[in-house]
Amino acid sequence: MTKPLAVGMVGYGFMARAHTNAYKRVRDFFSGLTYQPVLKAACGRDEQKVKAFAEQWGYECYETDWRKLVERDDIDAVDICVPNNLHKEIVLAAAAAGKMILCEKPLSMNIAEGQAMCEAVEAAGVANMVWYNYRRIPAVTLARQLIESGRLGRVYHYRSNFLQDWTISGDVPQGGTATWRLDSAAAGSGVTGDLLSHCIDTALWLNGSIKDVSAMTETFVKERLHAETGQVQPVGIDDACAFLCHFENGSLGLFESTRYARGHKALFTFEINGEHASLRWDLHDLNRLEYFDHGDDSIVRGWRTIHVTEGEMPYMNRWWVPGLSIGYEHSFIHQVADFLEDLEKGQSCQPDFRSALQTQAVCEAVLDSGKSREWVAVE
Amino acid sequence: MTKPLAVGMVGYGFMARAHTNAYKRVRDFFSGLTYQPVLKAACGRDEQKVKAFAEQWGYECYETDWRKLVERDDIDAVDICVPNNLHKEIVLAAAAAGKMILCEKPLSMNIAEGQAMCEAVEAAGVANMVWYNYRRIPAVTLARQLIESGRLGRVYHYRSNFLQDWTISGDVPQGGTATWRLDSAAAGSGVTGDLLSHCIDTALWLNGSIKDVSAMTETFVKERLHAETGQVQPVGIDDACAFLCHFENGSLGLFESTRYARGHKALFTFEINGEHASLRWDLHDLNRLEYFDHGDDSIVRGWRTIHVTEGEMPYMNRWWVPGLSIGYEHSFIHQVADFLEDLEKGQSCQPDFRSALQTQAVCEAVLDSGKSREWVAVE
Amino acid sequence: MTKPLAVGMVGYGFMARAHTNAYKRVRDFFSGLTYQPVLKAACGRDEQKVKAFAEQWGYECYETDWRKLVERDDIDAVDICVPNNLHKEIVLAAAAAGKMILCEKPLSMNIAEGQAMCEAVEAAGVANMVWYNYRRIPAVTLARQLIESGRLGRVYHYRSNFLQDWTISGDVPQGGTATWRLDSAAAGSGVTGDLLSHCIDTALWLNGSIKDVSAMTETFVKERLHAETGQVQPVGIDDACAFLCHFENGSLGLFESTRYARGHKALFTFEINGEHASLRWDLHDLNRLEYFDHGDDSIVRGWRTIHVTEGEMPYMNRWWVPGLSIGYEHSFIHQVADFLEDLEKGQSCQPDFRSALQTQAVCEAVLDSGKSREWVAVE
Amino acid sequence: MTKPLAVGMVGYGFMARAHTNAYKRVRDFFSGLTYQPVLKAACGRDEQKVKAFAEQWGYECYETDWRKLVERDDIDAVDICVPNNLHKEIVLAAAAAGKMILCEKPLSMNIAEGQAMCEAVEAAGVANMVWYNYRRIPAVTLARQLIESGRLGRVYHYRSNFLQDWTISGDVPQGGTATWRLDSAAAGSGVTGDLLSHCIDTALWLNGSIKDVSAMTETFVKERLHAETGQVQPVGIDDACAFLCHFENGSLGLFESTRYARGHKALFTFEINGEHASLRWDLHDLNRLEYFDHGDDSIVRGWRTIHVTEGEMPYMNRWWVPGLSIGYEHSFIHQVADFLEDLEKGQSCQPDFRSALQTQAVCEAVLDSGKSREWVAVE
Repeated sequence: MTKPLAVGMVGYGFMARAHTNAYKRVRDFFSGLTYQPVLKAACGRDEQKVKAFAEQWGYECYETDWRKLVERDDIDAVDICVPNNLHKEIVLAAAAAGKMILCEKPLSMNIAEGQAMCEAVEAAGVANMVWYNYRRIPAVTLARQLIESGRLGRVYHYRSNFLQDWTISGDVPQGGTATWRLDSAAAGSGVTGDLLSHCIDTALWLNGSIKDVSAMTETFVKERLHAETGQVQPVGIDDACAFLCHFENGSLGLFESTRYARGHKALFTFEINGEHASLRWDLHDLNRLEYFDHGDDSIVRGWRTIHVTEGEMPYMNRWWVPGLSIGYEHSFIHQVADFLEDLEKGQSCQPDFRSALQTQAVCEAVLDSGKSREWVAVE
Repeated sequence: MTKPLAVGMVGYGFMARAHTNAYKRVRDFFSGLTYQPVLKAACGRDEQKVKAFAEQWGYECYETDWRKLVERDDIDAVDICVPNNLHKEIVLAAAAAGKMILCEKPLSMNIAEGQAMCEAVEAAGVANMVWYNYRRIPAVTLARQLIESGRLGRVYHYRSNFLQDWTISGDVPQGGTATWRLDSAAAGSGVTGDLLSHCIDTALWLNGSIKDVSAMTETFVKERLHAETGQVQPVGIDDACAFLCHFENGSLGLFESTRYARGHKALFTFEINGEHASLRWDLHDLNRLEYFDHGDDSIVRGWRTIHVTEGEMPYMNRWWVPGLSIGYEHSFIHQVADFLEDLEKGQSCQPDFRSALQTQAVCEAVLDSGKSREWVAVE
Repeated sequence: MTKPLAVGMVGYGFMARAHTNAYKRVRDFFSGLTYQPVLKAACGRDEQKVKAFAEQWGYECYETDWRKLVERDDIDAVDICVPNNLHKEIVLAAAAAGKMILCEKPLSMNIAEGQAMCEAVEAAGVANMVWYNYRRIPAVTLARQLIESGRLGRVYHYRSNFLQDWTISGDVPQGGTATWRLDSAAAGSGVTGDLLSHCIDTALWLNGSIKDVSAMTETFVKERLHAETGQVQPVGIDDACAFLCHFENGSLGLFESTRYARGHKALFTFEINGEHASLRWDLHDLNRLEYFDHGDDSIVRGWRTIHVTEGEMPYMNRWWVPGLSIGYEHSFIHQVADFLEDLEKGQSCQPDFRSALQTQAVCEAVLDSGKSREWVAVE
Repeated sequence: MTKPLAVGMVGYGFMARAHTNAYKRVRDFFSGLTYQPVLKAACGRDEQKVKAFAEQWGYECYETDWRKLVERDDIDAVDICVPNNLHKEIVLAAAAAGKMILCEKPLSMNIAEGQAMCEAVEAAGVANMVWYNYRRIPAVTLARQLIESGRLGRVYHYRSNFLQDWTISGDVPQGGTATWRLDSAAAGSGVTGDLLSHCIDTALWLNGSIKDVSAMTETFVKERLHAETGQVQPVGIDDACAFLCHFENGSLGLFESTRYARGHKALFTFEINGEHASLRWDLHDLNRLEYFDHGDDSIVRGWRTIHVTEGEMPYMNRWWVPGLSIGYEHSFIHQVADFLEDLEKGQSCQPDFRSALQTQAVCEAVLDSGKSREWVAVE
């Protein structure tokens, strides 16, 4: 028996496309799901744009005020794909209206907001989830399984970075629809919330909690034209951020993110070194997981590159045949599939708000440390 | 204005899924298309299976006799995803019924069949296309553009292979739904028609016609259980095939295909060496194109690995942002988009039947040479 | 107790340097050897050049006539590093004089010559060896050990190529000291004797005998200036050569060599696919061996890249510590070490002339097949 | 005219072998040098071992007391290959005796010692050099040339690490000949002095001075058997160390080193990101330099892997031909060649003691920061 699940999408940008694609495709490949996403309404302030988006993707209708969307009786779940400074208010209203909430990452502008959001969804008892989609890249999920199965043993090191190069030019503006990520008023932070949050979410999932951090942040381009005000204004975000940390399990962490690493577009990598084995991964080659197993015969020991396309590997029995790749967008489809399955089972799809709040706490400690130049304990 | 284009799908297997997915998704990403594929009917002999397929994917109805499908007035285009030995008959009927035809590769069991099929669609004046999908991997399309732009100069060498390892075990049967590719009655040939045909199609597209070939074929496992007869029967297909050839442009070619290369799942590669530059590509890392340019300063000359995800690269402005990968299935979406666009423009989408017949001619020369142990001219 | 072994070097070019370096260094790293190479005399027709060479490298004296060198009582071993057309005559004289002979590859201009040379050294009972040095790259030796130990099981495929790009320009001359390899009178053949012979030697060692071949040869630049005659003359060598073959063990072979593959300098690769495992190697990254083991747990199966620098790997306990690379020249040092050790043990260092004659037979079959366009059995 | 340069080697271990090999080989490949190293005497406390070493490598004689060696009139240069805690005393005596000094890295146990050593050699006016050999890997030297030529523009990021895995087992002892690097009394520090010092030397050379650092150090195995005392004793060294830093040029640095990164043997890497171009390198593939040039046509932009074997690249005209690799040991040969050439020119071979003292200052700031958990300015 199929149960419809009416989705109200707040936003019509890049992430709204990625999520909508996932709702439309999920049941083609994940047969057996009870819930059927229905594209009920899209919402955005620019009527012309939101209308075009709704038509392009097949939403039944559109709204220009998210408050109206949130209050509609025919909406089961609200998906939030707008700048970070709007998350809290929408979440609070949606929770009050009893809607499930699927919120883009990072969860919030800061811990305080995030805490309020967690309390709201938990008080309302609504399903909630944050789109840290990279957990659902099959190679990353496989990494988690290998770690959980004990193959690594005691962990000594974890390192991760997320490198881009798209803001090197001083001509890139801040603010507005396309470049709100450079505007601290809209984004809260720069690479820390946008990119490092992905690194941190994955790290917490794979390697457990972080105790304390020592960070370094930098803003290379000090002023940029603001796309909304038309004025050259100081840049408030961190263009680059790196930090050292201790994990609860005794391992050492090293993280870095920047938009000034010439030659890298979306180089999200992690590596974890354990007593018996190591793993590493790179978003640019997302179907591959590298694995070193010290238990191999010493004469043939080496890093293996596992092409994560076999049917027995996570999610891959839903797709094609061994050797045939999937892409970035599939991580969202997997996350929707898991969300719907968890919904049916009555369990919370991870990372939920409470889990994502931990990532927020690390981000905040990192930003604090960047300012204070001191080691900061993670709350 | 949108024009519906009603698709009748013959088949419900792996390729039928890949094509159907393409029909469903194409307009989400290729806005601006006039034609709108409509999933009208699916067809298969096993009623239970075809019904399940139709429901899973959203076909309006189903048929169990392809003749009925072909004759339906509400079908505009017939998509043929059944074993090779059925292509000709269906094509002839569909052409006679005035349907557009999108036929899986290889076109036919042999040249004679292919010739008849070409004549049928040309006499009927119906749009026709063969699913050599790899031309539409953006990195492969980019390779074509770089060659066309003259960057390589005179070409000396072309080499290509397609390596798998899934039939090494003698326990894999032949025949039946899942393993008809091992049954010569259904498939015509083994790796030559299944895998080398992809290598050849790409080669002809990138490097022009082939003049003559010297081939070697081998059947490693001589007998296999037949899934339909239940008998152990001689294996009639080529398990492996390699050939040397001369291209019309004076360059030398080297091709190889097998299902006995332990460690390779779908390793389709090509490399082309020109006077000024070289290119190579590998399906296992399909978003990358490797490029060597002798015109670079000698002190920094080296093979470049181009991550083909920039908006200005073929098809990629339709997808995500730089650095974010697409997968195998996108090649089909691109092919449908091109087919629909060509339809609107009144031009033939390549490779059409006539073009695919050239690949068939090379395959036949290869198989002939494998038997005769002589150089064979391509017709 | 140390026994001196007086070396007479015929030649002073690239290979003479590589061999001389090996003689000088071998005992520093291979302690425990009884024999001690002594650089007795170098020989070359150009007195000024041979004198400079002898002084540079520390030869005690020099000769300008190889016949004198060969007749000297104070020479134990003659090392032949001159163009191929001179090998036979020198070998016959050296054998007659009772000298050990270390001859550059390929052994001879053709089988007939090679046969005579084998008979001469065998009749004289002198130690003899051909410099197919790549067998002694540790990663290649390791490949041999892994195959010998049965890890691959039944072999299905072997492929190998040797690609260069240094003769693309028509301005490169033929003949003379630097470019005698382009002059068929001096070299006998082009890439077949120079490059494919390496591929073949390694293949025979790793995968056993070759039964028959079908080859394709090409001369892209038809005329070149001859450095000695000063005339533009027809080019008699093969610029490129590719061939198919059957091995005695039932596996299929594919070989290719050229000096027209833009972007490749000395890309010598091989790959061997067995029932249980596969191996591949590339001279450009000579310290690495790639290995795929189907016996690995399926969830973590993948190609391993073995960095062949561990002390338990072939030859590597003589060098540095794990992770630290060796280079091209070390293959010669290993070959000298093995020669000296075999000498002490009274066994023939492989490949000796008789073994290298098999490579010669394959080369000749390949060249014959290139001309006749027919499959040719290897003698 | 050749001038002998008599070398007195203090030590007979791994580095003594590497240096001695360099002295013996340098003139074979670097013709044109005036100075000729002569292996005069080796020195070590264990007479049996130093005698064997001297005989193996061809030193004319040996000493068991370095003071005697330093005082010998027939020694021109003293090479120091003993544990770090002995460097200062030997340097002071050698300088007083007017000897040239080639000292293993790190220069000293701390800044104070290093300062005294600099003053000693400068007061004595003797040639001095520290063996930061990796500057002389051709790919690293090429990186320096490309940076110097302005190809990168403003630099934003520098990251480097040196990862090993050889001390993961608690059974590895500390102290003694083979494992003095784990004994803080002999080594001063752990990975900071041993491995990070290489990263820092290269970084200072490529990217200029470091202003301040925030470091994290860890000792994973708290107690180890001491090879000399036979007691289980606390481990005083840093097993792992990572630090953040600011360079004087405004770029951000990230460094890490450990002996607990399973799967890495000697993975020394660096990457530098500039406005226009980026570079990266890895000791495991030392002949390759990766380069990204934003100035490339956007349609073919990508990371290039430069195989640094062309004659026009640093040092490579001394070796073989394009495509043929050199190894680890060649870096020492290049350093000796440069030392001898600088000696003739009357200039100081870099890094000299004064230059290496800067690396020492960064190391000390790193260790201080690891203890204080504060940002520390580099003196």
